[in-house]
Amino acid sequence: MPAPHTATLLIHCPDKPRLLHEVTRFIFSHQGNILDLQQHIAPVDNAFFMRLEWSLENFTLEQSEIRDRLAPLARRHGMQWQLHFSSQRRRVALFVTKENHCLYDLLARHEAGELPVDIPVIVSNHETLRGAAERFGIPFRVFPITPQNKQAQEAAQLELLREERVDTVVLARYMQIISPVMIAAFPCGILNIHHSFLPAFVGAKPYHQAFERGVKLIGATSHYVTEELDQGPIIHQDVTRVSHEDSVEDLVRLGRDLEKTVLAKALWRHVRNQVLVYRNKTVVFS
Amino acid sequence: MPAPHTATLLIHCPDKPRLLHEVTRFIFSHQGNILDLQQHIAPVDNAFFMRLEWSLENFTLEQSEIRDRLAPLARRHGMQWQLHFSSQRRRVALFVTKENHCLYDLLARHEAGELPVDIPVIVSNHETLRGAAERFGIPFRVFPITPQNKQAQEAAQLELLREERVDTVVLARYMQIISPVMIAAFPCGILNIHHSFLPAFVGAKPYHQAFERGVKLIGATSHYVTEELDQGPIIHQDVTRVSHEDSVEDLVRLGRDLEKTVLAKALWRHVRNQVLVYRNKTVVFS
Amino acid sequence: MPAPHTATLLIHCPDKPRLLHEVTRFIFSHQGNILDLQQHIAPVDNAFFMRLEWSLENFTLEQSEIRDRLAPLARRHGMQWQLHFSSQRRRVALFVTKENHCLYDLLARHEAGELPVDIPVIVSNHETLRGAAERFGIPFRVFPITPQNKQAQEAAQLELLREERVDTVVLARYMQIISPVMIAAFPCGILNIHHSFLPAFVGAKPYHQAFERGVKLIGATSHYVTEELDQGPIIHQDVTRVSHEDSVEDLVRLGRDLEKTVLAKALWRHVRNQVLVYRNKTVVFS
Amino acid sequence: MPAPHTATLLIHCPDKPRLLHEVTRFIFSHQGNILDLQQHIAPVDNAFFMRLEWSLENFTLEQSEIRDRLAPLARRHGMQWQLHFSSQRRRVALFVTKENHCLYDLLARHEAGELPVDIPVIVSNHETLRGAAERFGIPFRVFPITPQNKQAQEAAQLELLREERVDTVVLARYMQIISPVMIAAFPCGILNIHHSFLPAFVGAKPYHQAFERGVKLIGATSHYVTEELDQGPIIHQDVTRVSHEDSVEDLVRLGRDLEKTVLAKALWRHVRNQVLVYRNKTVVFS
Repeated sequence: MPAPHTATLLIHCPDKPRLLHEVTRFIFSHQGNILDLQQHIAPVDNAFFMRLEWSLENFTLEQSEIRDRLAPLARRHGMQWQLHFSSQRRRVALFVTKENHCLYDLLARHEAGELPVDIPVIVSNHETLRGAAERFGIPFRVFPITPQNKQAQEAAQLELLREERVDTVVLARYMQIISPVMIAAFPCGILNIHHSFLPAFVGAKPYHQAFERGVKLIGATSHYVTEELDQGPIIHQDVTRVSHEDSVEDLVRLGRDLEKTVLAKALWRHVRNQVLVYRNKTVVFS
Repeated sequence: MPAPHTATLLIHCPDKPRLLHEVTRFIFSHQGNILDLQQHIAPVDNAFFMRLEWSLENFTLEQSEIRDRLAPLARRHGMQWQLHFSSQRRRVALFVTKENHCLYDLLARHEAGELPVDIPVIVSNHETLRGAAERFGIPFRVFPITPQNKQAQEAAQLELLREERVDTVVLARYMQIISPVMIAAFPCGILNIHHSFLPAFVGAKPYHQAFERGVKLIGATSHYVTEELDQGPIIHQDVTRVSHEDSVEDLVRLGRDLEKTVLAKALWRHVRNQVLVYRNKTVVFS
Repeated sequence: MPAPHTATLLIHCPDKPRLLHEVTRFIFSHQGNILDLQQHIAPVDNAFFMRLEWSLENFTLEQSEIRDRLAPLARRHGMQWQLHFSSQRRRVALFVTKENHCLYDLLARHEAGELPVDIPVIVSNHETLRGAAERFGIPFRVFPITPQNKQAQEAAQLELLREERVDTVVLARYMQIISPVMIAAFPCGILNIHHSFLPAFVGAKPYHQAFERGVKLIGATSHYVTEELDQGPIIHQDVTRVSHEDSVEDLVRLGRDLEKTVLAKALWRHVRNQVLVYRNKTVVFS
Repeated sequence: MPAPHTATLLIHCPDKPRLLHEVTRFIFSHQGNILDLQQHIAPVDNAFFMRLEWSLENFTLEQSEIRDRLAPLARRHGMQWQLHFSSQRRRVALFVTKENHCLYDLLARHEAGELPVDIPVIVSNHETLRGAAERFGIPFRVFPITPQNKQAQEAAQLELLREERVDTVVLARYMQIISPVMIAAFPCGILNIHHSFLPAFVGAKPYHQAFERGVKLIGATSHYVTEELDQGPIIHQDVTRVSHEDSVEDLVRLGRDLEKTVLAKALWRHVRNQVLVYRNKTVVFS
């Protein structure tokens, strides 16, 4: 059977007693059937978070009307809110450099129908993975980056992303620092995979740092990109056990398995609208 | 600051569109502030599950009235429901035999204030752990069990539990099979820890079975006791890695760490009213 | 730098006091430098296991002579032994049906140089994954199986494997039961991935079984194929956490990540000659 | 049956071809039967590590002679070496402050016979845990610490440890920084448990730091104490998953389970002579 056509509302605002009730009343008064409701209160600063998904079957408002009709309620309570429809698939651009593992992993998931997104383009600063992209029939665009041309190339990338109506950028082991202009164009829309258990081993060569320190677990972290390097809101993390027998090369090899599963899981949650950002942290609904 | 005085409602019934709305309206119409709401629908059989916790500060109904006032709503929707108040601590009896690890672990958590329960009595079929119980100042009652006296002894245990107004029994490595009479007296109220990753290695000597089979992970499972041995609804499970270097004795040793943390976590969830049972499975709210 | 040219000796025999000494003397007396030695004794039945890897640089015996020169020592102690050379890459055939995740995962690892093997052929009982195989430039051979032709088709597969000098068969989600003839042709040479935490959920539809039982962790197991279904020696296992929110489809999706990493890790250990089989269990050296 | 009487030799030196052979010859020439041999080479700096355990049954040297007879061999190869006998139990002092979880955990393991050590004394800077210590019949000595008396109190502690012939100090949530004098008295003999996944969240209040950063896993690390705070060689680490629903108090509670199992496992490895320190990292034999 086809998945039902649904709307998902993500809300973040100051907590007030009747908030939940007013929102559910809005849904029910238009014959919406709530499929999932998760609500969370951060007591420290009295913040209210909610994810609400309802069926649009029998809903008495047109999809195009919902936003306008919700706006007064949202305004009244000072809500930051997002509304997503299951009928509008995310458009995701993959950014890569030379390593293939995250790329193949995402493309194989996509081909198997696991990732409900469109991937209109793969962007790289090197030719290396052109073959991989072409095997999956996805346009591969190369923007070689030098200190001199970086600004111009990013502008060209940005134009491409706009043309392709991309809403999410996945840095699938893209070895360039993203500039503020790009970050500003995709707020909470650029996912990175960092090959350490952040905040340990920020910056370059985390596996070398992990080897030097002699840790017994290595990790990977997927986070939204913000202006401060490796400091963005963490979406997902995982670790795997290592030992004194493992060389730096072993850590790199073992880490690849972490990187690909952690990035894929973060992207899964992002595209299913399970993630809210708040105070540089994430609320991840299940 | 003291924890707020709250009520928790656990509901399970057939799904209907306005269910959530009606329940939240009941809370709000009496000035209750919802602190946590989790709702889940099992699409396969259209079952609705909800956990709702609200503050009783400012609530306009007396604690003693709530049950009666909720009853019509519950009846109308065919709800199975439980209502718990944070002011009424669970009364937990620990059953042990000879192994000390789960007992000490639970007693240490209790002494540290981690477990919000009363422990009026420790029951055993052996004298072995009397010293441990007495160190923590908890009455220790021994009921030696033989095939001949088993029925009478269980009746005596049951009387003791009633006298002590026990609502939850924790089999903390109690090496006797619980009879149907006892099980019937505590529906979803007896927690066991089985030293395997169920359903693997049901029955006796699971570590020996695991050793023979050459598994690479061993596990522990906490479940509610039902009449079928080791077949009750699973509350929590965990595993740890083992290797060919581990003897049966090593598995036993490594398993103890699993047993105590898995049992403690299951009990934590039980006493915080996070667990619903349905079709011999659990819904565990977070 | 290129990896050093090495020999690896795997030994299994009854334990005797001077065993280790005699083997190391053999290596040293021909100027071999031991790079790695791991030895294990199973006290229960007095069995001795050893993995010994040494550099062939400066070794005074030709590679072709070693086997003959070791034979008398091995005979004297009743050893079961294997000798492998790093210069002789394993030749691995991948068997698939319709699911792509393990296949892509192994091919991407191979392309990235992570798996030191040759993959001369991919075998399937369906056309579905031809495109995937061809993208990586590996011959794809289809043997449709019916109850009537099964014996003949397996004979044809076997002939193909011999032609291609295959020494290891990987069942990367191949949905056919392997017959005893094939198993006999590759003793401890056929790796399977079973999508459960064995011995739980043997046989068909393990994720459905797991869903029904309400387990809180699902697993995957890679084992050598033996005549008894899902009963072969376990090489590697792993688990991941699930909850009441996960449908069977979610278990299938989450399980895929386990299946591909568990199978890849088992294959890695197999091709690096880290695995010995004994009493239907594995000794896995690190 | 009683555990066999054994000797364990830990060696660390520059790698040389005949090293392993010469050591095993020493054992065999005196009729020692090797029960376990693990050898590791760190290729980066050509360092050789070995752990060798042999049965002293039938060994032709007296226990008291072994050290002298090994010395020339050790000198010739520039070995750093330790020799331990299973007949000489470690004498361990536990240092605590106010939190009971690591203390009870270690005492329960000790009482159950899991930890093959003597615990002659528990040291604290507070009275809080006197009752816990006394319940287990272990002397409890309080040294209140102020900035003014710290040096004198540590000198008194040191004298106590010497009187009690303590060889290992376990900081089981002892909330004082250990001074260089104490550290120098127990090289690789003081184990600490730090309540974070080092090197993340060094220093005070790591759970608060973890909460602020919004990590999705929290950890615990057991390491040898060196002069640089939280920078000593890591023996063992583990992590557990947390979410946005967890308050700082939840992290503290969940972390306690990590702390006690990580510390106990590190101590287990230490007292079984499985740990070698090298370049501020550990080699942990299995």
